[in-house]
Amino acid sequence: MMTRAQVAQAQARAAAQLSAQGIALTPAEQAQIEVADFGLGDLAHTGLQIVVYVNTDRYCAKELLLFPRQTCPEHRHPPVGSDRGKEETFRCRSGQVWLYVEGEPSAQIAAHPPLGSESAYTVFHEITLLPGDQYTIPPNTKHWFQAGDQGAIVSEFSSASRDAYDIFTDPRIRRLPEVMDEAD
Amino acid sequence: MMTRAQVAQAQARAAAQLSAQGIALTPAEQAQIEVADFGLGDLAHTGLQIVVYVNTDRYCAKELLLFPRQTCPEHRHPPVGSDRGKEETFRCRSGQVWLYVEGEPSAQIAAHPPLGSESAYTVFHEITLLPGDQYTIPPNTKHWFQAGDQGAIVSEFSSASRDAYDIFTDPRIRRLPEVMDEAD
Repeated sequence: MMTRAQVAQAQARAAAQLSAQGIALTPAEQAQIEVADFGLGDLAHTGLQIVVYVNTDRYCAKELLLFPRQTCPEHRHPPVGSDRGKEETFRCRSGQVWLYVEGEPSAQIAAHPPLGSESAYTVFHEITLLPGDQYTIPPNTKHWFQAGDQGAIVSEFSSASRDAYDIFTDPRIRRLPEVMDEAD
Repeated sequence: MMTRAQVAQAQARAAAQLSAQGIALTPAEQAQIEVADFGLGDLAHTGLQIVVYVNTDRYCAKELLLFPRQTCPEHRHPPVGSDRGKEETFRCRSGQVWLYVEGEPSAQIAAHPPLGSESAYTVFHEITLLPGDQYTIPPNTKHWFQAGDQGAIVSEFSSASRDAYDIFTDPRIRRLPEVMDEAD
């Protein structure tokens, strides 16, 4: 749960991150930056800011904004009806991001799962993405990612996005954000 | 037909355009920038430079680089087998681009079809794209576009790309580039 002020602050920070990288948004897009705390109420550690450019029934493009050391928690995109599950390509635009997917665990990993949530992180095959690097994640594959100390901008290109169907390893997570009014 | 030197020069210019905008490519991507003169041998006027980030059977993402007043000629993406035809979203990143699609012709248009090729331009519904603006083109819809005086960078998000099936209005056009060795 976040307050409107927290959401607005994160939106402004994400917009500044894009602007510093020369990535232009319309005012309408800025106002609609999605701030996801995944229901854990600890945005600084577990969270993601998202600009959805387009999401049709065929393809989707987004910018993912990560603050320093912010983590997008482990999840997968399962088949939904005739859709075999979302396939997605992450391309690092600025900063640094460590991506973890299923496969041989790396001997040492650079990221740290958020404190208190360690049991919800189970895949440790590390891929380091610097600006210009990209990686494509097959459907229904567990993955999570964390930004380096400068944060990161990651472009996501994918098949259709149906976030409500994402399956998170952490049973406490709610994908769709809940915002409370200050007066609540 | 282009010479290898012409291709290399256009690749270097396109890479510089991306770099100036803070868009990082790997060395391998730089070496593979596609230079399309559409077989007309007049790249400065009719041409396009393309970086393909990813092209799976489900989605595709590219950067389109246009030099000042360079034109991508009129074409459409027809259905291919079970694919209903490529659907694509153009998002302007820098510079300015005028996009023309089917529909009510605009009273005045800002772009000029390349001299001598006017008959191959038949749709004139104008959409102006500045940084942060985007437009989605339905499958099988004729379209063409031209950059403004500063050139343009346009991100293209789409369903799967099958360039060889594109249908151009100009019967002289060959989509897949032909390059000759200097000694030829």
